[in-house]
Amino acid sequence: MEKPYYAVIFTSTRTSGDHGYGEMAEEMERLAKNQSGFLGIESARESVGITVSYWTSLAAIADWKTNADHLFAQRKGVTDWYKWYKVRICLVEREYEFEK
Amino acid sequence: MEKPYYAVIFTSTRTSGDHGYGEMAEEMERLAKNQSGFLGIESARESVGITVSYWTSLAAIADWKTNADHLFAQRKGVTDWYKWYKVRICLVEREYEFEK
Repeated sequence: MEKPYYAVIFTSTRTSGDHGYGEMAEEMERLAKNQSGFLGIESARESVGITVSYWTSLAAIADWKTNADHLFAQRKGVTDWYKWYKVRICLVEREYEFEK
Repeated sequence: MEKPYYAVIFTSTRTSGDHGYGEMAEEMERLAKNQSGFLGIESARESVGITVSYWTSLAAIADWKTNADHLFAQRKGVTDWYKWYKVRICLVEREYEFEK
């Protein structure tokens, strides 16, 4: 990816039960991909969930944070889905890659 | 965590079979935690594996990268364990947290 760019690291632990989480998570990923400045997203969950999304600028991250559908999902996150979460907004300073 | 601090985002896809990976991953986490400048580590793997480790400085990250046992594991990673990986070294600019 072309620098400078930003990574948003979202780590979380879930409440028990789905409560519509799976469907909303897919919908949010679909919407994020349509946002201006979106570069990519990667997710995995075991005892902790980690989602890292990549963005061209802090402005693009702020736009996604205040997207109306995303705001709705964020409220549901606090009331229904997450026991704990942490968001870190990071400037990617260096990167390297290996492919077999 | 006290700023400034750094996040190392390690994303990967595995080859098939364990080939000693599980044991080495645990050992590397144990060693990383004893490194000077280590702040924390979080991991999850589904179709992609994501490990994020947190460090006080770029020097602490460089020390861990060149740790002899870690160098051995990195070589095994390339020959045996990973189809693909990407490492991103990031400055954490902002963070916020929610706890129920």
